[in-house]
Amino acid sequence: MRAPAGVKLFHSAAALARSLGRGKGSVGLVPTMGALHLGHLSLVRRARKEQARVVVSIFVNPAQFGPGEDFSRYPRTLAADLALLAPEGPLWVYAPPVEDVYPAGFSSSLSVGGPLGKVLEAQWRPGHFDGVATVVARLFGLVRPDHAYFGLKDYQQFQVIRRFTRDLGLPVGLSGCPTVREADGLAMSSRNRYLDPAQRGAALALIRSLRAAQAAFKAGQRSAGRVEAAGLAVLKKERSLDVQYFSVADAGSLEPLARIDRPAVALCACRLGKTRLIDNLALRA
Amino acid sequence: MRAPAGVKLFHSAAALARSLGRGKGSVGLVPTMGALHLGHLSLVRRARKEQARVVVSIFVNPAQFGPGEDFSRYPRTLAADLALLAPEGPLWVYAPPVEDVYPAGFSSSLSVGGPLGKVLEAQWRPGHFDGVATVVARLFGLVRPDHAYFGLKDYQQFQVIRRFTRDLGLPVGLSGCPTVREADGLAMSSRNRYLDPAQRGAALALIRSLRAAQAAFKAGQRSAGRVEAAGLAVLKKERSLDVQYFSVADAGSLEPLARIDRPAVALCACRLGKTRLIDNLALRA
Repeated sequence: MRAPAGVKLFHSAAALARSLGRGKGSVGLVPTMGALHLGHLSLVRRARKEQARVVVSIFVNPAQFGPGEDFSRYPRTLAADLALLAPEGPLWVYAPPVEDVYPAGFSSSLSVGGPLGKVLEAQWRPGHFDGVATVVARLFGLVRPDHAYFGLKDYQQFQVIRRFTRDLGLPVGLSGCPTVREADGLAMSSRNRYLDPAQRGAALALIRSLRAAQAAFKAGQRSAGRVEAAGLAVLKKERSLDVQYFSVADAGSLEPLARIDRPAVALCACRLGKTRLIDNLALRA
Repeated sequence: MRAPAGVKLFHSAAALARSLGRGKGSVGLVPTMGALHLGHLSLVRRARKEQARVVVSIFVNPAQFGPGEDFSRYPRTLAADLALLAPEGPLWVYAPPVEDVYPAGFSSSLSVGGPLGKVLEAQWRPGHFDGVATVVARLFGLVRPDHAYFGLKDYQQFQVIRRFTRDLGLPVGLSGCPTVREADGLAMSSRNRYLDPAQRGAALALIRSLRAAQAAFKAGQRSAGRVEAAGLAVLKKERSLDVQYFSVADAGSLEPLARIDRPAVALCACRLGKTRLIDNLALRA
């Protein structure tokens, strides 16, 4: 594929490293699975502001999809992604084949245990975060960034990445960046393009439920159960939603809370037909 | 504990890092569990030759011992270790409490799969290499060495460490250093001090068996089964030994071989009473 001006496209980490060189200023990394939207672009823009050079990786990582999940149908739109990135350049884009990320003999796996590795997404998507942790650590090793940028729509994912980066003392700074939303509040996600118009309408219940929880919290409610009930009531009204969880949790460990007596976050996950959506909102007084 | 001249002793990685500073030349790391012997000293000497500064870590890592193994009775001899290290100085010794290596909240675990993570030691000590990989990656993160030195007596351990260091692209060079032996051939090991005189004599069967295998190989035998049989015959004569394995394996992946048609190694493990010993020898023509 021919890359548009502003973008240097690499399919191998070795070629990327040769182009980046060493000692030419800081390197920022924005790891993505492609199917880029304005949420990804907000990460790229922040990285461009803060780092001398910015690498965007585009890799649909098989290891983070479970059996029956949407790995095979996950949107792969490299030409459109490059066109979207071009005006943000100069950018280094690393879009590797599977063998470049996992060459023959690759056999390491990184896992985050504790509550973070057990609750919420970890419970509904067994093995998912092992796949995420392993590929992100691998990308850190291949790209050697000074700093990496992640969207907080995938809140638990970011906590998992913070955890192993700290535990292993990896020399990479991390930023979690605010969720970018459509005008009507739906969190941007590559999976939104799976939704038909009726589902697209129903999907708004996620952010409505989170805002209801936030409103209850701001009104002084400190019982996590009651705040969750306020959110769940909104989700339950949308009959086409299959609610997986709505949880008020510790903002760092994601342990479920009884009383909201520390920094907390409300998180939810729902299925609409074959599509699974997640969203979250901080609970701040 | 007061450290002898030539040795700077640290119980916290933060204090060690402050003392080492940055940009003052290369840092070599020799990770140990203490109970030091001449095998460890050979690593320290090599590190001192090759690196500007050398850190020796002394940490009996609970995560790499299984239930029923010798974690609680593993020899802890810090004063003697420091005395042994002092003439090799200047050295930075990092002898942390468990909480410095695994602080509250630590929850990452690194695992090497494939044959390396399944055969031989991995089969007899389930979870052992996960504990090794995690603590070594953790020590790399805490000490940030340029290069680390390991003894090849723990052959499979070194291959596991090579594997994850490469897979995660960790910026640490690795050297596997030759096994140091007693005059009669017994591989030096902190666990040798568990042996009573009769066991100490019986333990020589390990190196005798490996040399018998090597002799068969040098005489032209290329059937792995026959080379193993030559080694096993020697071990079987020593009735007090409980033989766990004697295996001829690929020198890199440790996959069992049928024909010895590539770089190979013979490895064995035996129990003598409560003590478990391992040893290995390369098969070279």
